[in-house]
Amino acid sequence: MRVTVYREAHFNAAHRLYRKDWSDAKNQNIFGKCSYPHYHGHNYDLEVGVTGTPDPETGFVINLDILKTIIKEEVEDYFDHKNLNIDIPEFENTVPSAENIAILIWNRIRKVLHPDLDLKIRLYETRRNFVEYDGN
Amino acid sequence: MRVTVYREAHFNAAHRLYRKDWSDAKNQNIFGKCSYPHYHGHNYDLEVGVTGTPDPETGFVINLDILKTIIKEEVEDYFDHKNLNIDIPEFENTVPSAENIAILIWNRIRKVLHPDLDLKIRLYETRRNFVEYDGN
Amino acid sequence: MRVTVYREAHFNAAHRLYRKDWSDAKNQNIFGKCSYPHYHGHNYDLEVGVTGTPDPETGFVINLDILKTIIKEEVEDYFDHKNLNIDIPEFENTVPSAENIAILIWNRIRKVLHPDLDLKIRLYETRRNFVEYDGN
Amino acid sequence: MRVTVYREAHFNAAHRLYRKDWSDAKNQNIFGKCSYPHYHGHNYDLEVGVTGTPDPETGFVINLDILKTIIKEEVEDYFDHKNLNIDIPEFENTVPSAENIAILIWNRIRKVLHPDLDLKIRLYETRRNFVEYDGN
Amino acid sequence: MRVTVYREAHFNAAHRLYRKDWSDAKNQNIFGKCSYPHYHGHNYDLEVGVTGTPDPETGFVINLDILKTIIKEEVEDYFDHKNLNIDIPEFENTVPSAENIAILIWNRIRKVLHPDLDLKIRLYETRRNFVEYDGN
Amino acid sequence: MRVTVYREAHFNAAHRLYRKDWSDAKNQNIFGKCSYPHYHGHNYDLEVGVTGTPDPETGFVINLDILKTIIKEEVEDYFDHKNLNIDIPEFENTVPSAENIAILIWNRIRKVLHPDLDLKIRLYETRRNFVEYDGN
Repeated sequence: MRVTVYREAHFNAAHRLYRKDWSDAKNQNIFGKCSYPHYHGHNYDLEVGVTGTPDPETGFVINLDILKTIIKEEVEDYFDHKNLNIDIPEFENTVPSAENIAILIWNRIRKVLHPDLDLKIRLYETRRNFVEYDGN
Repeated sequence: MRVTVYREAHFNAAHRLYRKDWSDAKNQNIFGKCSYPHYHGHNYDLEVGVTGTPDPETGFVINLDILKTIIKEEVEDYFDHKNLNIDIPEFENTVPSAENIAILIWNRIRKVLHPDLDLKIRLYETRRNFVEYDGN
Repeated sequence: MRVTVYREAHFNAAHRLYRKDWSDAKNQNIFGKCSYPHYHGHNYDLEVGVTGTPDPETGFVINLDILKTIIKEEVEDYFDHKNLNIDIPEFENTVPSAENIAILIWNRIRKVLHPDLDLKIRLYETRRNFVEYDGN
Repeated sequence: MRVTVYREAHFNAAHRLYRKDWSDAKNQNIFGKCSYPHYHGHNYDLEVGVTGTPDPETGFVINLDILKTIIKEEVEDYFDHKNLNIDIPEFENTVPSAENIAILIWNRIRKVLHPDLDLKIRLYETRRNFVEYDGN
Repeated sequence: MRVTVYREAHFNAAHRLYRKDWSDAKNQNIFGKCSYPHYHGHNYDLEVGVTGTPDPETGFVINLDILKTIIKEEVEDYFDHKNLNIDIPEFENTVPSAENIAILIWNRIRKVLHPDLDLKIRLYETRRNFVEYDGN
Repeated sequence: MRVTVYREAHFNAAHRLYRKDWSDAKNQNIFGKCSYPHYHGHNYDLEVGVTGTPDPETGFVINLDILKTIIKEEVEDYFDHKNLNIDIPEFENTVPSAENIAILIWNRIRKVLHPDLDLKIRLYETRRNFVEYDGN
């Protein structure tokens, strides 16, 4: 009897899609206006889903206070009001696409989550563009 | 060729997270302000998902009028404007966490749904906290 | 040149619409299921709008940190996870309708807000029922 | 390492649920007000989910410009501001239920999508009624 | 001390923007795809705002049950699942633009609303296009 | 008989709240994490409201195609995927607060809008913070 508990979180960040090893023309051709040199930004909305068996005493898959602390420490403190290209070392040579941000968030939460719990995340870059990742 | 049809529903209820067999201090420690003695409440938003093969004549997995009636009888009439701790017998000795409410709703709908149809639900306790359950 | 700045907040509370000086039948007749004896509850969503002239140096009508503190102290700490009928003295003999809750919130914020600033609020009891009050 | 990328799209269309080979009474009985003779309509909201492995260079499962073009050509140009019963040949003898519209959309996108990518869609007929289909 | 109470409602309808006294070319030129001959449709979302002084006994500007009945009789029964051009006599020679639908809805509610109460409405044709009217 | 027509638009931008003529400590003290040196960003959602008398022939206060063109040229082309501090000359010495962005947007639309039409805008910096400006 496994239930998934979701908690929504938010962070605001600047980013730019481009590769140093590509010409400006190629960056513009592949990434369009997302490669503009002075960055743009998003309100990232994150849904963190944790799957497990509810504890018979508390009725909780995971205490939300614990999940909120994990999200604060691993996601909000790390990404909020940051420039993803400059401030996040994992994106020094990797494009901070929504896909890659989602994989990085998943890895950061996964390493501190109890191994009996499964994890999946959904990351909204805008209301109309979003990605999902569950580690598979 | 299986399609999932979702219908959204709502109910408002009061509840309190606490266990009679725990001290007030332990209830406060584990459940925080959710254990306040005089109850608080939520607008619960429910998504009921029913999976099956569309009928070739009607194009319906399930006629929405039938699904609405099931949701009204099994969920809204049972939970709406109720106090979950006092008015719902299943929560006399069980914490009405979102997880446990979702499991109870799933069981109530499952027992009246045609066995060829699969069922999953998502229950929003707030816009930022929600749970999913599909019987597995 | 006056701009209105809005900040959204949330609180969860239980309540019941009824009057002690009315019979149960009259309460049921006027307030319907909202008068059920064991309370029900809502996720209240609040929009606080503050109107004023932006400061030429900061570009702010009001620093959001100040507004957030006011909302926390005057609204969230006072109403969140409370039973409006039992825990809020203003509702000992007054029905905690959305209208009356909105007026009380407006009065609480108004008394600590700088007199040069205007105030209006919108309070959602559910997604489909909400009220507005601006002190007039 | 497979990630799902979603893009939201919209179209407005008129439709009517009825079968020519049924009597008016039977249409009314099964489809209710959805069978009214002069059509009604919806703002259809569509989520298109494409699953694949992010390209190591771009970080993209699929370039969103490509996905937007596919959605424009296969969905928006085909359905937007149309009468589903009259203008869409696939619904000449098939009821344009949300289920059947979703299957048709899925088939139209599937045939132009790279075979390494998986596809699922969610179609909202209203905010409270929606369907999902992933080809299985 | 005047408070505005809002209630949200919905209806689905088909319509077409065109004038019989214009050529097809002029209709197409002015109304674009909204003039397509076989109609398209929308989920219309309506917010009805009623302003007045809360009753000291009930705390209500207007009992929501009364407001819901007015909206059902004057709006939903009249517009839901209808073709605005064919089924609504007021649009026989008037374009059913969002503006004109809003004015018609306002007039229908105004005539049955207590004269001490003020009325304003907001009508969403889509999530991104909406209109407001308050009788002035 | 004046109706207000709203159109929603979006743009993504990076910005930073700080003043060159203040010390880093003062910027940090007043603007908090919004002053981080490498910028952060937002999905700005904009509602543009235009008030006027519907044209008796078309039923339009303003043809939405005209309004969309104005918004594209004056707002989206000017702000989308830009760095507000670096790319927008009006913010060279002015803090790009939500208030100041709203005033700039209002001025840009006002100068190209027909003088018989009134204008007001609402700008969402996040779902929970937004501002309104109508030129007064």
